[in-house]
Amino acid sequence: MPITLSDIRQAAERIQPLIHRTPVLTSETLNRKSGAKLFFKCENFQRAGAFKMRGAANAVLSLSDADRAKGVATHSSGNHGQALAKAAQSVGVPAYIVMPRTAPKVKQQAVAEYGAEIIFCEPTLQAREDTLAEVIDRTQATFVHPYNNERVITGQATAALELIEDTNELDVVMAPVGGGGLLSGTALSTHYLLPRARVVAGEPTGADDAYRSLQAGHIIPSEQPNTIADGLLTSLGDKTFPIIQEHVKEIITVNDKEIVVAMHLIWERMKIIIEPSCAVPLAALFKRADDFADKQVGIILTGGNVDLSSLPFS
Amino acid sequence: MPITLSDIRQAAERIQPLIHRTPVLTSETLNRKSGAKLFFKCENFQRAGAFKMRGAANAVLSLSDADRAKGVATHSSGNHGQALAKAAQSVGVPAYIVMPRTAPKVKQQAVAEYGAEIIFCEPTLQAREDTLAEVIDRTQATFVHPYNNERVITGQATAALELIEDTNELDVVMAPVGGGGLLSGTALSTHYLLPRARVVAGEPTGADDAYRSLQAGHIIPSEQPNTIADGLLTSLGDKTFPIIQEHVKEIITVNDKEIVVAMHLIWERMKIIIEPSCAVPLAALFKRADDFADKQVGIILTGGNVDLSSLPFS
Repeated sequence: MPITLSDIRQAAERIQPLIHRTPVLTSETLNRKSGAKLFFKCENFQRAGAFKMRGAANAVLSLSDADRAKGVATHSSGNHGQALAKAAQSVGVPAYIVMPRTAPKVKQQAVAEYGAEIIFCEPTLQAREDTLAEVIDRTQATFVHPYNNERVITGQATAALELIEDTNELDVVMAPVGGGGLLSGTALSTHYLLPRARVVAGEPTGADDAYRSLQAGHIIPSEQPNTIADGLLTSLGDKTFPIIQEHVKEIITVNDKEIVVAMHLIWERMKIIIEPSCAVPLAALFKRADDFADKQVGIILTGGNVDLSSLPFS
Repeated sequence: MPITLSDIRQAAERIQPLIHRTPVLTSETLNRKSGAKLFFKCENFQRAGAFKMRGAANAVLSLSDADRAKGVATHSSGNHGQALAKAAQSVGVPAYIVMPRTAPKVKQQAVAEYGAEIIFCEPTLQAREDTLAEVIDRTQATFVHPYNNERVITGQATAALELIEDTNELDVVMAPVGGGGLLSGTALSTHYLLPRARVVAGEPTGADDAYRSLQAGHIIPSEQPNTIADGLLTSLGDKTFPIIQEHVKEIITVNDKEIVVAMHLIWERMKIIIEPSCAVPLAALFKRADDFADKQVGIILTGGNVDLSSLPFS
């Protein structure tokens, strides 16, 4: 069943107690440098530090009472794990997060701080999936996939919903693409609310499976992705790909150097902390500046969880 | 003549076209960690990256037409130089900024980008003052002191004015203290608008001349200051000291380690970029948490101009 505008609006209302309505910021300097008029939806200020809180909250709050008691589970070494843990904690639902032993200490701590049970596994996809299956078998918890899940996609769609509500008629809405949860949600909200606007994604060249999938007309999995934008390593899923195929005009790929330049500009000029993944759409816009000249462009800044002791600026 | 509330309100109106009304942000995590309710006035998002834009704009816009044509001059290797250059550029007034040859390239570039003429000098106070005197002799420009100037103090007072307008009754208003321009302006606005509130300053122990001046009852100049909070190295002036003496309840000193801990917390939890100097009031609050328990505390975050390639986090 397709996700409707009514589903997205209901999700927005449902998750409202668990999320921040994040601000939309602008920057004269970045407008001047880009030649476009930019509106940044600051999900880096979202609770748990990323838009992932929206999808996680929608998934948790959509559970039946019986399923709430059993809890939620996922495998994630990143923002989705933190978001699911925090969303679950906020409403007293148990959360089980499978993480590779090699996950950064700071991410382990964040998940633990949100009261989730962490189950460590070897750092392979197989080990993650096997461990998750064991956990679910033991607990009967509901698996909340980081992106290939309609509740999650619907939750992520609320970021673009708010962006569109808080700006005048946008010509373009941009988001980065990894597994496509945010991008497909963004595409749906834009399709329903601003049917004339273009949805354009940015993707790292070192993890350009979505670009290649769109060209090929079928999902091409991400193999050995290699990019500084470590939130965008995953492959599209069978729930995100069809939405993207239908509603996303274009995916522009950018290399790590272009990503770091855009990231540095946002840090330096806007004085806000964003992850490398966030900078991908702005890098894409700079790369093809002529296509965006004088346009009103909404850009979703996805998150701000970076390791401050190891930054790519020198 | 004392600075009145009407002066401050007029300045707010005068500078409004040249400044941003910066947001007041809150953080659940920092409230929890501090035990107080904190309201951060984000002057790191101000034009030119710091509150200094307010005082500079007020000084430039208060000039007579004849003086506008001659321009403004100052010596500064920091935010005041950038702010004066940008304020002057915005209204077509020439600006002359004396900088030590050793000033960081990034600061030189910022001042140059704002169209000011940079005059380099040797990195001593004597050389700065001599060079500035020559420049003023040559150009007849008006000297705009970074803080010991009533127009500047009145401009800086507008930050607290906005903070107070945008929050419910604050119990405490906090700012860092260097030369005292911001602190004296903050103290005046708070005195007029929230007479029951306490004004408390934070100061680095490595540059604690204001603390010692307040104890002694007369200005004790800053000698060989040494702190990471490089915006707070200057001494109080004869225009800022009396206001601080009359209206500031207390100055709390904090060491560099405490400053970096507070700075890291703001970066990590609020996802915003602030200078070390900004973190001084929060560090002071943490140091004396019992004094602020359950209080509503407004904190002015002064600026966000940091060298991203050299951060104190490890």
